[in-house]
Amino acid sequence: MKNIDQHTITDAVVRSFDHCDNPRLKQILTSLVTHLHDFVRDVRLTEAEWSEGIRFLTETGHMCDAKRQEFILLSDTLGVSMLTVALNNNKPPGATEATVFGPFYVDDAPAAEQGADIAGDAPGEPMDVDVIVTSIDGTPLAGAKVDVWQADEDGLYDVQIAELGARRRARATFKTDAEGRLRFRSIVPSAYPIPTDGPVGRMLIAAGRHPWRPAHLHFMIEAPGHETLITHLFRDADPYLDSDTVFGVRSSLIANIAPARGSTPAKLTHHFVLALEG
Amino acid sequence: MKNIDQHTITDAVVRSFDHCDNPRLKQILTSLVTHLHDFVRDVRLTEAEWSEGIRFLTETGHMCDAKRQEFILLSDTLGVSMLTVALNNNKPPGATEATVFGPFYVDDAPAAEQGADIAGDAPGEPMDVDVIVTSIDGTPLAGAKVDVWQADEDGLYDVQIAELGARRRARATFKTDAEGRLRFRSIVPSAYPIPTDGPVGRMLIAAGRHPWRPAHLHFMIEAPGHETLITHLFRDADPYLDSDTVFGVRSSLIANIAPARGSTPAKLTHHFVLALEG
Repeated sequence: MKNIDQHTITDAVVRSFDHCDNPRLKQILTSLVTHLHDFVRDVRLTEAEWSEGIRFLTETGHMCDAKRQEFILLSDTLGVSMLTVALNNNKPPGATEATVFGPFYVDDAPAAEQGADIAGDAPGEPMDVDVIVTSIDGTPLAGAKVDVWQADEDGLYDVQIAELGARRRARATFKTDAEGRLRFRSIVPSAYPIPTDGPVGRMLIAAGRHPWRPAHLHFMIEAPGHETLITHLFRDADPYLDSDTVFGVRSSLIANIAPARGSTPAKLTHHFVLALEG
Repeated sequence: MKNIDQHTITDAVVRSFDHCDNPRLKQILTSLVTHLHDFVRDVRLTEAEWSEGIRFLTETGHMCDAKRQEFILLSDTLGVSMLTVALNNNKPPGATEATVFGPFYVDDAPAAEQGADIAGDAPGEPMDVDVIVTSIDGTPLAGAKVDVWQADEDGLYDVQIAELGARRRARATFKTDAEGRLRFRSIVPSAYPIPTDGPVGRMLIAAGRHPWRPAHLHFMIEAPGHETLITHLFRDADPYLDSDTVFGVRSSLIANIAPARGSTPAKLTHHFVLALEG
């Protein structure tokens, strides 16, 4: 394959995968190359723009570490994450909908007991959370593993605050009780901008977009025989519900948060319904 | 834009660029998102595959430093670099063709005098290089800046050899003489595999591809009033001329290298013809 030009190169690259013995990888690479080349041809990418693209991807990689995942931010802000979630989470009617995972999950969240206050010293208005987890037929799911994580009143997750080191707050992992219920105390979530000090933030600014996400709590719920549910509960009346910068809002996930009254803190209640596996 | 699904998300992301005041950036982002989403839908990317993609891009970023550009390797091996070169280097008949820049250029190559031996202690068979640089109408281009870089007999560029530190060899920058000629001594280039110790190498192996590039010297030639020429000269009869892993071979760039005879070293001769600017 000498003397390849802009018209013949896509076939040449696709043919280079002829000896790939993993049919799924071959399918993915073939489709990726075809669409990527179509993009380059469609916009007639200049060599300076190609260099800028290489620089952008390199900086994005260099921003990634154990506490920051800039490629997930890129995927989130370009709608690739939500598209993947939508393609893979066609939940049956009645099951709780899924949304994006986000870049702030960590796998070392502390285990907490029912009723615990997980806020630690995270600034924010106290909020009681009282949720129930059932199967699609209404059966309570006892002992389901529930991961919860959220930003504080300043819009920051624990992992974004250097001074906290490995200390975790406003984040925990629980088991539901015999009735499938989970009660804990945390703080009212706040809207926040995704981090704008990296290449993805610069892209949003250059593209005329705001970086805000409406206030939400993250939940990941695992129960045997059921599809793992990765979702959020959004705070109602948030100004960014209609322009979430990662395209993740679903009406069914806008939660009911009763405001504080006197000494009774705000209270979020919700019923999570898990779809059966398979 | 709540309740976005796999069908409506692309429009939603494209509309998010409505307030971008840079028309070219808006065009590029719109096309990129459209093609990227089409790819994700076409293959019905799973969430595990999405995670693998995030991991792959992150590792690719982490391999990049001042001496290693893994994203250029990725672009090269997927044909994106050569496609961009082809789109932007539609040279007029008679002008020397362009090919990929590659990841091993550095901007601190030592300046060398006509006739210099630039090999240093790079292992390899000595080779004299005798080239002329002219404009498209045959006028010799005196004082043209010529950057040369190449791998040694072991297939390694200087920047790939940690022990060399910042020392450069088989790499230099020259000016052509009053007749547009440039003579120097270096070594016969050798075929080499692109680095396979990173994610791009693992992708090639998984895709059933070899990582080899046919032997070549890199040239970048700049002269006032002319398009900068970024190209290679390939060694003839190389076994990889028909399967260059970066798709960069052009018949017109396969050079004449006269073999060594007795005490006369091998000799490469070539006539570079630069296109007019604009």
